[in-house]
Amino acid sequence: MKGCGGCPGPNGPQDDLLQPGESAPHADSSLGLVIPRKVTLFSGSQKLTLECGRSLGPIQVAYETYGELNERRDNAILLLHALSGDAHAAGRHRETDPKPGWWDTLVGPGKGFDTDRYFVICSNCLGGCMGTTGPSSINAETGRPYGLSFPMITIGDMVELQRHLIDHLGIERLLAVAGGSMGGMQALDWAIRYPQRVAAVLPIATTARLSAQGIAFNAVGRNAILRDEHFQGGTYYATGNQPAAGLVIARMIGHITYLSEEAMHQKFGRRLQRARDYRYDFENEFSVETYLDHQGSIFVDRFDANTYLYFSKAMDYFDLARQYGGLTEALRRTQSRFLVLSFSSDWLFPPRQSREMVNALLAAEKDVTYCNIECPYGHDSFLLETEVQGRLLRGFLDQTHRKLPRESRAAATAAAQSPDRTHDAPAGKTVRSTRSIFSGERVDYRQIEHLIEPNSSVLDLGCGDGELLQLLREQKNIRGRGITLGQTDIQICVERAVDVVQYNLDTSLDVFADKSYDYVVLGQTLQVIHQPQTVLREMLRIGRQAIVSFPNFAYWRSRLQLMFRGQVPTCTALPYTWFDKPEESVVNYLSISGFEHFVRRVLHARLVRRIPLSSKSGREVTRLANLFADEAIFVIAD
Amino acid sequence: MKGCGGCPGPNGPQDDLLQPGESAPHADSSLGLVIPRKVTLFSGSQKLTLECGRSLGPIQVAYETYGELNERRDNAILLLHALSGDAHAAGRHRETDPKPGWWDTLVGPGKGFDTDRYFVICSNCLGGCMGTTGPSSINAETGRPYGLSFPMITIGDMVELQRHLIDHLGIERLLAVAGGSMGGMQALDWAIRYPQRVAAVLPIATTARLSAQGIAFNAVGRNAILRDEHFQGGTYYATGNQPAAGLVIARMIGHITYLSEEAMHQKFGRRLQRARDYRYDFENEFSVETYLDHQGSIFVDRFDANTYLYFSKAMDYFDLARQYGGLTEALRRTQSRFLVLSFSSDWLFPPRQSREMVNALLAAEKDVTYCNIECPYGHDSFLLETEVQGRLLRGFLDQTHRKLPRESRAAATAAAQSPDRTHDAPAGKTVRSTRSIFSGERVDYRQIEHLIEPNSSVLDLGCGDGELLQLLREQKNIRGRGITLGQTDIQICVERAVDVVQYNLDTSLDVFADKSYDYVVLGQTLQVIHQPQTVLREMLRIGRQAIVSFPNFAYWRSRLQLMFRGQVPTCTALPYTWFDKPEESVVNYLSISGFEHFVRRVLHARLVRRIPLSSKSGREVTRLANLFADEAIFVIAD
Repeated sequence: MKGCGGCPGPNGPQDDLLQPGESAPHADSSLGLVIPRKVTLFSGSQKLTLECGRSLGPIQVAYETYGELNERRDNAILLLHALSGDAHAAGRHRETDPKPGWWDTLVGPGKGFDTDRYFVICSNCLGGCMGTTGPSSINAETGRPYGLSFPMITIGDMVELQRHLIDHLGIERLLAVAGGSMGGMQALDWAIRYPQRVAAVLPIATTARLSAQGIAFNAVGRNAILRDEHFQGGTYYATGNQPAAGLVIARMIGHITYLSEEAMHQKFGRRLQRARDYRYDFENEFSVETYLDHQGSIFVDRFDANTYLYFSKAMDYFDLARQYGGLTEALRRTQSRFLVLSFSSDWLFPPRQSREMVNALLAAEKDVTYCNIECPYGHDSFLLETEVQGRLLRGFLDQTHRKLPRESRAAATAAAQSPDRTHDAPAGKTVRSTRSIFSGERVDYRQIEHLIEPNSSVLDLGCGDGELLQLLREQKNIRGRGITLGQTDIQICVERAVDVVQYNLDTSLDVFADKSYDYVVLGQTLQVIHQPQTVLREMLRIGRQAIVSFPNFAYWRSRLQLMFRGQVPTCTALPYTWFDKPEESVVNYLSISGFEHFVRRVLHARLVRRIPLSSKSGREVTRLANLFADEAIFVIAD
Repeated sequence: MKGCGGCPGPNGPQDDLLQPGESAPHADSSLGLVIPRKVTLFSGSQKLTLECGRSLGPIQVAYETYGELNERRDNAILLLHALSGDAHAAGRHRETDPKPGWWDTLVGPGKGFDTDRYFVICSNCLGGCMGTTGPSSINAETGRPYGLSFPMITIGDMVELQRHLIDHLGIERLLAVAGGSMGGMQALDWAIRYPQRVAAVLPIATTARLSAQGIAFNAVGRNAILRDEHFQGGTYYATGNQPAAGLVIARMIGHITYLSEEAMHQKFGRRLQRARDYRYDFENEFSVETYLDHQGSIFVDRFDANTYLYFSKAMDYFDLARQYGGLTEALRRTQSRFLVLSFSSDWLFPPRQSREMVNALLAAEKDVTYCNIECPYGHDSFLLETEVQGRLLRGFLDQTHRKLPRESRAAATAAAQSPDRTHDAPAGKTVRSTRSIFSGERVDYRQIEHLIEPNSSVLDLGCGDGELLQLLREQKNIRGRGITLGQTDIQICVERAVDVVQYNLDTSLDVFADKSYDYVVLGQTLQVIHQPQTVLREMLRIGRQAIVSFPNFAYWRSRLQLMFRGQVPTCTALPYTWFDKPEESVVNYLSISGFEHFVRRVLHARLVRRIPLSSKSGREVTRLANLFADEAIFVIAD
């Protein structure tokens, strides 16, 4: 087969049989030149048993590595490629290569997957055409290419083969598995199949089961290939004519689905490729046509139509809910930390599908952080967006690496000598959220701290940059989780190792089980949400206790301001007037007495504790609270 | 060609040469059985000159009619079909036909296009394969099918041919032209090309120029056909083998784009067609695959691949902005009323594209009503949704018909005898918006009426069900336009003949030109919008005067309530507490004095008039307004 990932580089070994226990090969960490590698697994009588019931062997695996495996062998990250990807994730094979590997934007020194710190591995998937055994490989039993006699493979089979590669490289536990699209499916499968062998899982722009629309697009692509006159039942290798027309069509369809409508509009609009006027014929005329045609043509030069069939079918079959009797059941088996990323403009693997996955992880009470990154490039965003992704990946991998148990004394010493801080150390430079709509110090945080029992669990709704959760973890050793909307807040939370999901409070709380937290906190957020009553009811359902703080609108200064000046009051905690409040913020005006009334008469809940506060002194107000407190904290329960 | 639209029915005439001036043929108005018709235009030496520069003739046109042309000949509606449609819009040709015409949901007695009232015409487009001359027709000069020697046609060419058909039917002016998708493009072209010959234009689920993504999907479909081995440069008619594989692929792609992801999920999900378990082969396995394959196969039986090429290319070429030097410039030529409809889940012709069209119509100061109908079925919604569409169509056509000038005395007499009411009559049954967040009588309406000069222009932001605009039209003969969000409000506005667009005030006002209205009104709406300051600035820019009414939070009752009871006040005009206010409503608390301060010091605008009101008495409050008025109207200007 043509293609770069599978061919040995100028000086690359044909078969790199690294023995378990040996130190890893030294890859060029500057990623100037990367050496492609191959290894044969399942040689002799060994066979890999596949999910379809058939078995396969010998199997050759093409892979690449970047960075160095450390002494503890705990810094290895496995990258998993998408449908048209290969083992060549980063760097160049030759100085003259026009393009580097497919994820070069995020793999390299100082990048999201920092090759100065981590040992990064990427292998071509089972069934591929870039060096790993697939339908275009020679079947040793017949001496001819497999073609459609190649057994059907699944995402799980790809993972099985990768696990054998990881064994072969002598790595017991991966720091992380990460991939986008089909690669993200493999990451999820890894987490379920080998819970103890991956510390962190990063499913990016992916899904736990392909949608009907996803299957439909794949089906059209396959139909185009299968109906091509040159396909010949998949035995086209000897004919010299591959089903190019069909593969071009499949690739064109794929390309449309990888971009967003907006991105296509920006990139091409209705621009004509050559002439100024319409030509009135059926040649490519608009720039977008030429682009798609070109993408189709170069794809045919590097990709095998049968691999397209097998990979797309593996994606169609992927359905964790079906395989494990429910998505939550599937993800309950995992023991990793999760960083789930989706992209706002991705309509092939829409954010909704990532939220479905995150919901299941939340229901299964797993450590998960989720961010839906604002980015206009559609599904391809996972290859193109580097700023937010880079920062989230770095922070998440860094915190995962810190959290790893240091088992041996030698390892502990090494850790002490390394610049790594321990888990409980403060998170480096002080970073502040720029998205908070509140200014000034949060006097309620210290008060809330006193209300929380040590070693309890806390769900913080509207957690902002995670300051409260970090404080509670440090002071009370709580198990915490936050929900917030701001992308910058998420980044800071990740760097603080605070689990956070980017959800809207008004619509997302039903995913949490009854009484699944000791405390649900809503700190200075009640006044800015659309459906305060629904949220409060959910808090009572989810937590043993609900802790709510808000500014008191019946504070004496406000009363006087309205009474004698006829002005609608503002206060420290609500410093905005109607005409200058931040965009999209709702303001609910609350009073201490009104909230009490609401809790008793509307919620029919129990008022466990009431702490009226002076925001100036930070102290509790002991008498005439509704008059003298400008802020209040309530603990309520049902 | 196969297909039903082009074949004569069992008793249908082969060539229906109705002479201009003759009365229209009596079509079966019950739509029990519909008789297909054909006519030959451009016979002999006559030729139709096309936009590509070539000419064509003779041309046969297949068309159908439903209902009866009235004596005044002012009740004719021309329907325009989409890419895969034909002249057979409604009813059945034979009692045994399994499916009626493509828009049968909306065409018939009492339906959206009410055949008891209107004479409805639909013809197969130029270039079609259902009875109208197209690439599969015999070229008289060669005696063989045109194939790709057929000249390239445009949406404009289709409209030209339709205009000749309308001439032939003796209709001077159409009551309406209406169509979805490619049909909507034709409707727009009609409006620009023959402004005086259409009273109303209904572009539905369409665009004024196809997006890059739209062109891309069309290009892939064409590529599939052009690359099919049986295509043979388009000369496949004699071979007995049409490019079926390519046409199937094109149709499959099309079908995916016609449905929404949500609709596909609901309809198919990940259901398997036959077996319970995966079969691990490349046959159709998921229901969605079988469905698409079936749709592709039946399409090949009824449609011509060359027509697919020509129609899709005509859509690609359609670009009113390019053709007329800007979309506003294009639409400035029109003299019709517009009803623009889009569907929330349509991603092929997304609502954004309809808004682009509506923006241009607003900029050109045309009569336009716009509604983005909530419907989950994707682009196909225009064929499937009947309730909201039906009511909007009926109301809009009814009002258009009423507004027609009654030219002759006979016509006037006929009109007097008809059950039609005159334009100024009240709009039948009393309908009330259910979406208004306000209860009680609007005392500000009568006051606002006094502020408005006769014969002026008024833009009403947050116009609700159009009550104020109707009042002002009846009392002051104003030219009015409303903006609102509620779908039910839009329906009522349409029935009141109030032009209304379903826009969000916070983001849409920049489309209106500076000082393009005498008055911009914001009645009891300021307190529920997200960006009040932006909206007020826009009002001052757009109107000579801005009229704003809102509830006064500094009313004495509110003051006492907060001062002595420590309760956050509610009042008649703001009857909600923080925990029971309607979903998504923002509440800005305003006072009369605060608003005055804001107008002078923040907006730096001129306070033209201030009317503090008592909502109880409806009278102006003359002293201590900020204390004694619970509502206020301001007139401001820059």
